Amino acid sequence: MLYIIGLGLGDEKDITLRGLEAVQKSQKVFIEAYTSLLSFGISSDGLSTLEKLYGKSITVADREMVEEKADDILLEATSSDVAFLVVGDPFGATTHTDLVVRAKKLGVDVKVVHNASVMNAIGVCGLQLYRYGETVSLPFFTDTWRPDSFYEKIQRNRKLGLHTLCLLDIRVKEPSLESLCRGKKQYEPPRFMAVSVAIEQLLEVEQMRGENAYTEDTTCVGFARLGSEDQLVVAGSMKQLLEVDFGLPLHCLVIVGDTHPVEEEMLDFYKLAKNQGQA
Amino acid sequence: MLYIIGLGLGDEKDITLRGLEAVQKSQKVFIEAYTSLLSFGISSDGLSTLEKLYGKSITVADREMVEEKADDILLEATSSDVAFLVVGDPFGATTHTDLVVRAKKLGVDVKVVHNASVMNAIGVCGLQLYRYGETVSLPFFTDTWRPDSFYEKIQRNRKLGLHTLCLLDIRVKEPSLESLCRGKKQYEPPRFMAVSVAIEQLLEVEQMRGENAYTEDTTCVGFARLGSEDQLVVAGSMKQLLEVDFGLPLHCLVIVGDTHPVEEEMLDFYKLAKNQGQA
Repeated sequence: MLYIIGLGLGDEKDITLRGLEAVQKSQKVFIEAYTSLLSFGISSDGLSTLEKLYGKSITVADREMVEEKADDILLEATSSDVAFLVVGDPFGATTHTDLVVRAKKLGVDVKVVHNASVMNAIGVCGLQLYRYGETVSLPFFTDTWRPDSFYEKIQRNRKLGLHTLCLLDIRVKEPSLESLCRGKKQYEPPRFMAVSVAIEQLLEVEQMRGENAYTEDTTCVGFARLGSEDQLVVAGSMKQLLEVDFGLPLHCLVIVGDTHPVEEEMLDFYKLAKNQGQA
Repeated sequence: MLYIIGLGLGDEKDITLRGLEAVQKSQKVFIEAYTSLLSFGISSDGLSTLEKLYGKSITVADREMVEEKADDILLEATSSDVAFLVVGDPFGATTHTDLVVRAKKLGVDVKVVHNASVMNAIGVCGLQLYRYGETVSLPFFTDTWRPDSFYEKIQRNRKLGLHTLCLLDIRVKEPSLESLCRGKKQYEPPRFMAVSVAIEQLLEVEQMRGENAYTEDTTCVGFARLGSEDQLVVAGSMKQLLEVDFGLPLHCLVIVGDTHPVEEEMLDFYKLAKNQGQA
């Protein structure tokens, strides 16, 4: 049996009782390292906190390991219980869907233990989840690569009065261009896009396109460390949020569409003028 | 302190360790009864399972109680720890946002404990969450009330190739029309919309509108008891899903947009011809 277990967003206490039971009866425990490991607070210390809680040793599986050695992990799951731990909910990232597909093809039984993810925890700011349009991803711009396909999506959502969740780029264990040229893999240090960088990139694209999909006065909500004890949620115009130091990753950003009265009341608690409150 | 604690979707084991700790240190524990209590398996038996797990007695708070006596609940939370338990994630329903707004206005500290909800657990079928458009709600049609504003939303999502989550009507503790006329409240038995009823209503509206937003050949995914041990996930055309007995509530329905290869591979596991598999 392969258990794919969501850990939730904060720390080791966000696992469910069902998830903990599955971990405890597994012979082997893996944890994915590539989506958001560092932000989850799993340094060498964080990992041992988990290991202590579970009474098990845990193998960190980075992107390479999951993509290249999935069959080894799955082979173990044919004859014993294997737990694969994932930050947030198991189906937040395509990679995990791929792991399930491979497992099913090999005839390995799969059980999924759900948990909170960014996709539903953003509800905390008061904007109703059923009033969001398509989600967009903002990649780090480079000198030569500045893709802006998110612009039309945001524009469409805003025309319909819908909110837009912007997922901000995470780069963990990316081989450096220099090392690839040399044929020897070396890795860039991990990078997480901050709210301010996201807004700068958004405004740059708006300036180029000039179609007024949004402006620096458009209301947004910035989130840092969503679901953690020290999460920060701040609402304000793009211009205002540019000045806020959201601190440690992960960050994400919501571009607000039309609001209902209850949504407006909740947002007010997070607006800059009043406070920088946490929920 | 007011803790608003998501219970997740399945049973008592879906609470998180963080949530359980908060319940255990609370002097008073309420559970919301109006969103999806019955489907959560909390009959008088289910409630005592929770009470046994928590070592606490629990007060069931129906819609009337939460809307009319919120201030009493909040008053208790000014001087002691109060836990308010919610099926799924706390921000799945507007009512809980309203409770938070009231709490903040009274100066009551609020802590939210997130969990899985329908909005992210539908990821289990393999359709990527960031490729969903606006969510729609399908209300039970009556002889005189057949609202169809969902039609344009589905049409819009499909034109963009996006998936659509349809939340299906839940009617718990609705006063009967007859009793309202007599000035004495009596309640209708609870009703939960089945996938087949949802599809019948969708096809009725398509027939009236005739704009081909979808047809009986459109691929959908039906879900029953999502996140429970006995969940059922079946993919097929609307026509095919009409014939499937999804069993006990809650049900929900996804109308599939354009699919990527990994999405297609996962859907295949749930297609009728192959099996009626569970994940």
